[in-house]
Amino acid sequence: MGTLVVTEAELRTCLHIDNRSLDAVEQAFAWIAEGRVSMPPVMHIDVDADSAVDTKGAFVEGMDHLAVKIATGFFRNPQIGLPSCSSIIVLMNAQTGAFECVFLDNGFLMDLRTGLAGAVAAKHLAPQSVKTVGVIGTGVQARYQIESLALVRNFEELLVFGRNASSVSTYCAEMSERLGVPVKPCPSVEELVKTAQIVVTTTPATDPVIMPDWLHKDLHITAMGSDLPGKQELHSDVLLRADAVVCDVIDQCAIGGELQHVTAGQVDALELGSIIAGTQSVSRQPGAITVCDLTGTGAQDTAIAIDAFARIKAAGLGSIIGL
Amino acid sequence: MGTLVVTEAELRTCLHIDNRSLDAVEQAFAWIAEGRVSMPPVMHIDVDADSAVDTKGAFVEGMDHLAVKIATGFFRNPQIGLPSCSSIIVLMNAQTGAFECVFLDNGFLMDLRTGLAGAVAAKHLAPQSVKTVGVIGTGVQARYQIESLALVRNFEELLVFGRNASSVSTYCAEMSERLGVPVKPCPSVEELVKTAQIVVTTTPATDPVIMPDWLHKDLHITAMGSDLPGKQELHSDVLLRADAVVCDVIDQCAIGGELQHVTAGQVDALELGSIIAGTQSVSRQPGAITVCDLTGTGAQDTAIAIDAFARIKAAGLGSIIGL
Repeated sequence: MGTLVVTEAELRTCLHIDNRSLDAVEQAFAWIAEGRVSMPPVMHIDVDADSAVDTKGAFVEGMDHLAVKIATGFFRNPQIGLPSCSSIIVLMNAQTGAFECVFLDNGFLMDLRTGLAGAVAAKHLAPQSVKTVGVIGTGVQARYQIESLALVRNFEELLVFGRNASSVSTYCAEMSERLGVPVKPCPSVEELVKTAQIVVTTTPATDPVIMPDWLHKDLHITAMGSDLPGKQELHSDVLLRADAVVCDVIDQCAIGGELQHVTAGQVDALELGSIIAGTQSVSRQPGAITVCDLTGTGAQDTAIAIDAFARIKAAGLGSIIGL
Repeated sequence: MGTLVVTEAELRTCLHIDNRSLDAVEQAFAWIAEGRVSMPPVMHIDVDADSAVDTKGAFVEGMDHLAVKIATGFFRNPQIGLPSCSSIIVLMNAQTGAFECVFLDNGFLMDLRTGLAGAVAAKHLAPQSVKTVGVIGTGVQARYQIESLALVRNFEELLVFGRNASSVSTYCAEMSERLGVPVKPCPSVEELVKTAQIVVTTTPATDPVIMPDWLHKDLHITAMGSDLPGKQELHSDVLLRADAVVCDVIDQCAIGGELQHVTAGQVDALELGSIIAGTQSVSRQPGAITVCDLTGTGAQDTAIAIDAFARIKAAGLGSIIGL
C-alpha cells in the first residue's frame, strides 16, 4: 500500500496556527481526562550531556490512527549553524498498524502543538481581561507560544526578556509585525512579571527565573520550558503561592516539569484535561494567581498528526513511497 | 539536507542473511556488555488486547548513528490477509540528531536481526556437532532463525512442529530447498525436543510448549518467542534444569522473556554479550544443556540499521525527500 511521506514544506502550506489546530490540541487534553489514552512514559535515549532523543506516543480509544514522535535535542548544534531540535512523526492505522504516513516535519508539528498547548492553558486559566503579556526567551517557542496565545486572548502589548540583545531586537521587530501590537524589550524578568497578566516561560533553565516575591493579583503563568529532570523555570514557592497549579500530566510533571521541585503532596495540582472535560474546575476568583506546568504529551502528537494527515490528504500533498 | 527514504524492496536487493549481517548483530550484544549502550526500556503502547506498538532504540558510544525502531504487532491482521507485524526504523546522526534515513522496511530489518540474534546465540552456546535441528512454529521467524542458524552450524536434518498441517507442509517444501537438507514434519514437540541437539521456539505461546522431562544431554534451546509479560514457551523447570541460562538483557527477560516465570535468584543467568565480549564464559561440558532467552534489543536495531545504511548508500539506493 505504500507510506505517504510528507515534508515540512508541504506541511507549512496547509497547517497553521489557527482555531482548527487549537481545537485538535485542546481535544488531546480532554482525551487524557476521559481515560481514552494509552500513553507510556517518554522513551529517553541519552546521547551525551548536550544531546538526547525523546520518543513519545499515544493511542486514543475511538481514533482511527495513532502516532509516535521521535524528537531530537542536540544543543551544540547552534555552534555549527543547525537548529537544536527536530522531529519525525509516524502515523499508524489503529486497526491494522499500517504505517500510513511519515511526517519529515523538522520539528514543525512539535513546535506547533507545543505552542497551541500553551494557548489552551491560557484559554482555560488566564484572566479574561489582559493588557500586557510577557514572554521569557526569544527562540522558536517564544514565537509559537505568543502567536497561539493571540487566538484566545486579546492584549495591548507584549514584553520580552532575553539575554541576547540582538535576539531580543529581532524578536521585537518580527513579532510586532505578526501580532499588530507593540512588542517591547523588558530590562528584567522582575519588571516583566510585575507588569504582565500573562507570563510564558520558554527557557531551558535549570535554575528558577521567576521568583515568588514578584507575583501579583490577576496573573497567569505558563511554564513550558521544563520537560526533563533537573530543569526549572519557576521557584518552587511560586507553585506554593499560586491559587491553582495545573499540569498537562501530573505524573510527568512530577518527573520533568516544575512539579519535580516541590515535595509530593505540597501542591494540590489538577490536570488541564479534567478542566476541559468538565470533570474538575478552577473558579478564577478576582485576583487569582494560576500556574500551568506543561511538559508535552504523546496525545498532543497524535492529535496534531491526525489533523495534519487530514489536511495533507485534502490538499493532495506528500509522496507515496514503497508501493 | 533531506532524509533518505528506503523501501523494503530496496533493502532486499542489498541486505541478506550473511556473515556481514551476522557480525553486525553479534557486535550489538558485545556493545551492551561493554557498557557502551544507552538503551531505555521498550516503549509499549497498548491498542487493544490483540494489538500494540513497541518502540525500541539505542545509542552506542563511538558509533556515528543511532536508531529508533517502531514495531507494530496487530494479531487480527491475518484474518484480513495482512501480516501481523511490521516496522519502521529511523536512523539519526549521533553528532547532530539529523534524521538521515527512514527505512520503510515492513518488518524486514526486524525479522533479519531477530533471526541473526538466534544464530549468534547458537554460535556461542550450541554443541559444535549437530545432527538434528528442531523448530517450533512455521512462521516468518521459523524461517529466519533456521536460515541464520545455517551460517554457524552444519546439520543433517531439520524437524518442524506446527499445529497447521498445510503451513507445516509449505514450510518443509520451502526450507528443504533453501537449506539443502531434509526438512520433516514432527508429530509432537516432545519427539522433536528428544531428537534434536538444537531447538528453536518461535511461538507467541502463553503456556509452556517445552517440558523439562524432555530435556537430554547435548541440547541447546533458543526461545525467541517470548518478549512481553504473560508470554511463555519453556516450562520454568527447563530453566532450572539447564546448565546455563543466557539472556540478551537479563532485566528485559525478567519482564517479558522466559525469565519472568522463575523467582528472582532461582536462576543464575548470564548475558550473551558478556560471553561474546569475553568477560564471562560458558564452558560447554560434554552433555551440557543450555538455554538462550531472547527478547530483542534496541542495540540490535541500531546495529542492523547502521549496516543497512552503509549498504544502501554503497548501492546508490533510496529516495532523498525534503531537500
